[in-house]
Amino acid sequence: MSLEPHHNMSLEEMDKRSLFHPFTSIGDHLANGPRIMSSAIGVHVTDSKGRRYLDGAAGLWCVNVGYGRQEIVEAMTRQAEALPFFHSFTSMANEPSIRLADRVLRWAPDHMSKVFFGNSGSDANDTNIKLVWYYNNMRGKPAKKKIIARNRAYHGVTIGAGSLTGLSYCHQFFDLPLPQILRTHSVDQYREKPEGMSEAEFSAYLASELEALILKEGPDTVAAFIAEPVMGTGGVLVPPAGYFQAMQEVLDRYDVLMIADEVICGFGRLGAPFGTTHFGIRPDIMTMAKGLSSGYQPISASVISNRIWDVLKDTSGEVASFAHGFTYSAHPIAAAAALANLDIVEREDLVGNAAKAGAELKGALQKRLGDHAMVGDIRGVGLMLAVETVADRATKRPFDLSLKVGARIVAKAYEQGVIVRPLGNMIAMSPPLTLSSANIEELVTGLGRAVDAVADELAREGALSRKH
Amino acid sequence: MSLEPHHNMSLEEMDKRSLFHPFTSIGDHLANGPRIMSSAIGVHVTDSKGRRYLDGAAGLWCVNVGYGRQEIVEAMTRQAEALPFFHSFTSMANEPSIRLADRVLRWAPDHMSKVFFGNSGSDANDTNIKLVWYYNNMRGKPAKKKIIARNRAYHGVTIGAGSLTGLSYCHQFFDLPLPQILRTHSVDQYREKPEGMSEAEFSAYLASELEALILKEGPDTVAAFIAEPVMGTGGVLVPPAGYFQAMQEVLDRYDVLMIADEVICGFGRLGAPFGTTHFGIRPDIMTMAKGLSSGYQPISASVISNRIWDVLKDTSGEVASFAHGFTYSAHPIAAAAALANLDIVEREDLVGNAAKAGAELKGALQKRLGDHAMVGDIRGVGLMLAVETVADRATKRPFDLSLKVGARIVAKAYEQGVIVRPLGNMIAMSPPLTLSSANIEELVTGLGRAVDAVADELAREGALSRKH
Repeated sequence: MSLEPHHNMSLEEMDKRSLFHPFTSIGDHLANGPRIMSSAIGVHVTDSKGRRYLDGAAGLWCVNVGYGRQEIVEAMTRQAEALPFFHSFTSMANEPSIRLADRVLRWAPDHMSKVFFGNSGSDANDTNIKLVWYYNNMRGKPAKKKIIARNRAYHGVTIGAGSLTGLSYCHQFFDLPLPQILRTHSVDQYREKPEGMSEAEFSAYLASELEALILKEGPDTVAAFIAEPVMGTGGVLVPPAGYFQAMQEVLDRYDVLMIADEVICGFGRLGAPFGTTHFGIRPDIMTMAKGLSSGYQPISASVISNRIWDVLKDTSGEVASFAHGFTYSAHPIAAAAALANLDIVEREDLVGNAAKAGAELKGALQKRLGDHAMVGDIRGVGLMLAVETVADRATKRPFDLSLKVGARIVAKAYEQGVIVRPLGNMIAMSPPLTLSSANIEELVTGLGRAVDAVADELAREGALSRKH
Repeated sequence: MSLEPHHNMSLEEMDKRSLFHPFTSIGDHLANGPRIMSSAIGVHVTDSKGRRYLDGAAGLWCVNVGYGRQEIVEAMTRQAEALPFFHSFTSMANEPSIRLADRVLRWAPDHMSKVFFGNSGSDANDTNIKLVWYYNNMRGKPAKKKIIARNRAYHGVTIGAGSLTGLSYCHQFFDLPLPQILRTHSVDQYREKPEGMSEAEFSAYLASELEALILKEGPDTVAAFIAEPVMGTGGVLVPPAGYFQAMQEVLDRYDVLMIADEVICGFGRLGAPFGTTHFGIRPDIMTMAKGLSSGYQPISASVISNRIWDVLKDTSGEVASFAHGFTYSAHPIAAAAALANLDIVEREDLVGNAAKAGAELKGALQKRLGDHAMVGDIRGVGLMLAVETVADRATKRPFDLSLKVGARIVAKAYEQGVIVRPLGNMIAMSPPLTLSSANIEELVTGLGRAVDAVADELAREGALSRKH
C-alpha cells in the first residue's frame, strides 16, 4: 500500500496501468490507450483533447434525455444532502424510491403490480430468473424451470443474465450458458425470412418453432420466455408483424411466463412508452434500466405482474423473508435522478419526439445510404436504428468479419465527429430522444462520409463488388 | 398507463402498493408498512416521523464516513455537471474512474494489478466467478472450475454470487447453489472450536479439512477459494490465529486461487486498510464495494493480481475483446463519489479511528453486557462487532429461533433510538468509522436497555434460564 500518487503519469498511462475495461480488447487497449471523455452537453460529448462528437449512441443506448440536464443534477444533489443512502431491507424505505416505484407503475401496463430495484440490466435479469424459479417453486411446480431466450439476444453478463444472452462471444471461455436456458430463433427479417413469405407467415413459423421446442422439452419443464421487443446488440432486429401475438398465444397455451426486456426499448426509445406498448405484448415481468435514469445513475428495475405478486404474497408465510436484494436496491440518489429524468421525458414529450425524429432519421438514412453499394438494409423503430452493410446487395453476401467493416466505419465516423456503434457488419444508432433536425443532418452527414470512405477502401482492397 | 399521480395516497400506502422490498417479509410488510428514512447527518438518521436514531449499522455495513458529507455531494455534483455518464466499453474512459482505479491499487497490496468496476458486491463476485473460469480456460485448465466457499458466507445474491453465499435461506426456493460451488467450514470459534483446542490447532484442523475436500474432488477440478476476512452476515466470525496462513498453504499447494471478499472489511472497517492487510492474506482477487463509496453511490470493484492479469493479457489475441462488463461499469459520478470518500477516509485517518473506536466500543460492550445472563459472546475486529445471545451461558444453549430474540432486541433498540442488525440470535454492529466516545456511550446505553428489556420478557416467558 502506497498512497503517494503517481504524479508524473498521464491519465492515459494511469488508465493502462490500472483500469480493466469492460468489453475491450486488452491487447488493443495496451497498444492504443483509452479515449477519455471529459464533458458533454445536449447530444454532444467532448473528449480530453477537445474533440467534439455527436453521440449517436447516447452512451450505450441510455442517455435518453441528453447530457447536461441541470434538473437531474439538482435532484441528485438535494437528495444526497438530505439522505445519500439508506437501505430498503426489512421494510426500511426512502421517499424517492417509493415515488419512483409508483411512477414506473403508472408508465407500465395496468396489470403490472410491483417494482423491485437493482443497479443494472444484468442484475435485473438475474433477479428475473430467480423470481421465475421462486414463483414456480411456490406454486408447486418445481420441475417448471427452463427459460427460453433467443439467438443473438443481449440480456446482460452475470452468470444468470449472461446465460440468457445469445451471443457466442459472451459465452466462449466463460462456461456459459447455464443448462436451464434454452434457445429459439431471433427475428432477422432481412436474412432469415424466406423470399415471398409474408411477415404474418414468418411470425406463425417462429411461433410454431417455439411451440415445437416447448413440446420437445415438455411444457411442465418450461417456465418462461424472454425477449427484447426490438433486439438491440444482436442487430436491431424488428419482429415481423404479429410476432408477439403469435408467440404469446403459444406461451399462454403452456403456462409459460413472458419476460419483456425493456432495458433499451423502455421509456420512449421506440416512440412509445415501452416496446410492450408498441407491440401489444402482455408481459409477466418487465426488465428496465438505461432510460429509467438516462444513465445518470446506475439503477434498474424488475417489474412483476399481479399474477406473480399474488403467488409471492400468498406464500410469504412459508419464508422468513423474500431472501433476495442488493445493498443498493432502491438507492435514494439513483431514484431521485430517475424521477427527475422521467419528469423531463414527460414534460418534453420525448416519447413523441422519438417517434417523430426516428422517422425523420430513418428517412434521411434511406435517402443518403439507401442506394449505397455496401448498404443492404436500413431498419429500426423510433430512435433505435441500424444500417447493415453487405459485400453484395443483390445476394446479401456479408463482408468477412475479419475485414472489420463495422469497426472501420465507426472509426471513420469518429473522424467526422459522430459516434455510432459497430455490431459486427452493422452500424447501430440510438441517439438521445431530444434529437433535432439539425442533429439528424449532422449525424447522417458524418455517417455518410464514413461509409463512403470505407467503401472506397474496400473497393481498393477488392472486397466490395461494385463501387458505390 | 396513467401518469396521474395518486394524490391522496400516503407514502406508506404508496410503498405497500408499489415497492417490492429486498430481504423483507411480504406479509409483515403489508401488515406493518415501511419505516421511511428522511434525513441523516454524521452517525444519526431521522425517519419521516421525526424520530432520530444512532445508526449502529452504517446503513448495511457501508456508510463508513457517516452521512451528510458535503465534500462527497460536491464531488458528485461537479462530475454530474461535467459528464454525468459515459461508458468504458471499447477503450472509452473517464477521468474519475481512471483516478479511482489508481487510488484503489495504491490502497491494495503491491501484487494487485487491475481494477474492474461494477455496481454491487453481488455483481463483483459474479464477475469473479467468470474471471476464475476464464483464467483457467485461457491457461489450458478447462476442468479446473470448482469454487470453494464457506458455510454461512455471504457473497451476494445473483445466481453466481448467491451460490457462493452459504446461508440456506438465500438458497431455499431459488434453486441455488450452482453445482460448481463446494462448501467448507466457517470459523465459529465460540461454537465450533473444541474446548482446550488452541486457535492454531483449530486453524490447522480447518486447513486439513480444506485439503481433504480438494483431494476428494481432485485438485485439477478446484479453481478457487473465497472468504470474507471477518465473516459478516454469517455472524461476525473472526478467524482463529494463523487461519489464513494455514488455508493459503493448502491453496498454494494445489494451485487454487484465493479470493478475499472485502466488501464489508475493506477500506478500514477492521482498523486496517483491508482484511487482507489485517490477516496477512495474499489474495489473487479482492472484492470491494460498500466502504469504497460509503454507500453514497452504487459502485463495486473486482481487483485482480498480476498473475491473473498476465494470463488475460497474454491470451487477449484469442478473443475479439474481454466480453464482460456493465453499462455502468466505471460510472463517472460513482467514481467521483468514491474518490471524495477515500479522501475523507485518508485525511481523517478513519482506518486508525476504526481501530481505536472499535477497541473502545468492544470494551464498553463487554463492561455493559459481558456478564449479562443472555449474552454468550462479544466478538469482532475494529468496528465490525457482534453480541451473541444465549438461553444459557454455561451450556451455550441457543434460543429457539422461533423466539426471534435478535429481532426483538433490534425492535427495542429502535425504541431507544439505536439501530443495530439482527443476525438470527446475534446482534451485529458496524457503525460509521467516525464513531466518537459520546456515540459509543449512546449506542451501548441503548443496546443495553434493549437487551435488558428483552431479557425481562424472556424471563417472564420462561425462555431464559436465569434472570440477569
